[in-house]
Amino acid sequence: MKKNKLIFLTNDDGVHAKGLNCLIEVAREFGDVAVVAPKEAMSGMSHAITIKSPLRVKKIKEEKGLIVYSCAGTPVDCVKLAFNQLLDQKPDLVLSGINHGSNSSASVVYSGTMGAAMEACVNLVPSIGFSLSSYSADADFSEAKKIARKVIDRVLKEGLDDGVCLNVNVPEMNGEAIKGIKIGRQAKGFWKEEFDRRVDPHNGEYFWLTGYYHNEEPDSDDTDEFALANNYASVCPVTVDLTAYHYIEKLKKWDL
Amino acid sequence: MKKNKLIFLTNDDGVHAKGLNCLIEVAREFGDVAVVAPKEAMSGMSHAITIKSPLRVKKIKEEKGLIVYSCAGTPVDCVKLAFNQLLDQKPDLVLSGINHGSNSSASVVYSGTMGAAMEACVNLVPSIGFSLSSYSADADFSEAKKIARKVIDRVLKEGLDDGVCLNVNVPEMNGEAIKGIKIGRQAKGFWKEEFDRRVDPHNGEYFWLTGYYHNEEPDSDDTDEFALANNYASVCPVTVDLTAYHYIEKLKKWDL
Repeated sequence: MKKNKLIFLTNDDGVHAKGLNCLIEVAREFGDVAVVAPKEAMSGMSHAITIKSPLRVKKIKEEKGLIVYSCAGTPVDCVKLAFNQLLDQKPDLVLSGINHGSNSSASVVYSGTMGAAMEACVNLVPSIGFSLSSYSADADFSEAKKIARKVIDRVLKEGLDDGVCLNVNVPEMNGEAIKGIKIGRQAKGFWKEEFDRRVDPHNGEYFWLTGYYHNEEPDSDDTDEFALANNYASVCPVTVDLTAYHYIEKLKKWDL
Repeated sequence: MKKNKLIFLTNDDGVHAKGLNCLIEVAREFGDVAVVAPKEAMSGMSHAITIKSPLRVKKIKEEKGLIVYSCAGTPVDCVKLAFNQLLDQKPDLVLSGINHGSNSSASVVYSGTMGAAMEACVNLVPSIGFSLSSYSADADFSEAKKIARKVIDRVLKEGLDDGVCLNVNVPEMNGEAIKGIKIGRQAKGFWKEEFDRRVDPHNGEYFWLTGYYHNEEPDSDDTDEFALANNYASVCPVTVDLTAYHYIEKLKKWDL
């Protein structure tokens, strides 16, 4: 008897987020699904791991073809726990998301969604992070689900090379159809922070992180940001090898 | 009158760590130094940012050419606060470390030290992360300081391209001299996790993250791991553009 594929899911908005549950629905069309997701929202946790405190896990759902755990850790902790403690076998595919909020351009480095996808990739399991350009808790994921279905299907058929995972971003469409999918690179840009400085009732100063995204190359048409701005979903291949290869020869000439 | 250079420092072991204080000593040879560092150890925090709670900052030292703040946030929070609230001008150079523990190979993605260096890089300020292959609180940083001095001097003279920062790792030498500096790429490898499962007095199960590093290519002689294993310091150029460029054409052929 042919064994079902095992698809592992996590996210950074927490186990009860709508985006995760939409992705579970899509993933179940392709195989058995196991989920370990943070019990609370873990946005902006990047590739963080929990070292100084232990992790606790709770099984919150089990039915034919689906098991769901929550974990008091980061998205990357969830992947590590799944791979090393909770799953009986290595999954065929790891999915992360669907994130409430885009993770295009520089946001990829802060993203817990992409941190989890990259963690699977470091461990040589094909993985995809999905994000929708809407922070709303009840965002409309219908177009994002279609894109996810299409990309998952192709990744299961084609595979991905070791060390490469996918960062898939879907624009918020408000009921309209997405124009298609563009393969793009990470746009150059950064967040312009504008901390909100406040004073507590005891005269203590504190700062809330806030800000807006600044695109350094709004006119380039081959970036993830360009795709989103033009109502296309963006698929960007992401590497876990951070070496700036083009710079190695230059540094060698420094003769350190 | 020529203005002194401004060098900004942070780390992930916390403001009182020996490694940071060693780096402050070296940095002061090159200019005025401003420090914003986590008030507690923040190892493994990667590029995490604090979104759900506000940040507090405390000035803990001020003397001619040196100002030190502690912050109840991550290393990346420290960089953001410094750039946007605490510094009067953009620094000429950002240094992170010296970390107690190496950040070579796959460790770069988990590292708060490198998270901070990459944050400066995203914001187009030249930056260097320094790490020593010893987790000891009172590790011997004498060789690491020599390497730091050499690399800082060259980066201040040569500059770094936008989007590239340096990941400098120094082996633990136990009193012997380092053989030199090798420019290398990030070795392929990963952490083999072996969670330590325990049961609390109330019969609740919990897990401690533990494990050891596995090098996938121990025989390659052009990696950071090879340099460290052979008593060389490693300088690896790191990019904040995570696009896997070699994979873009392949994905385009999928015709998604």
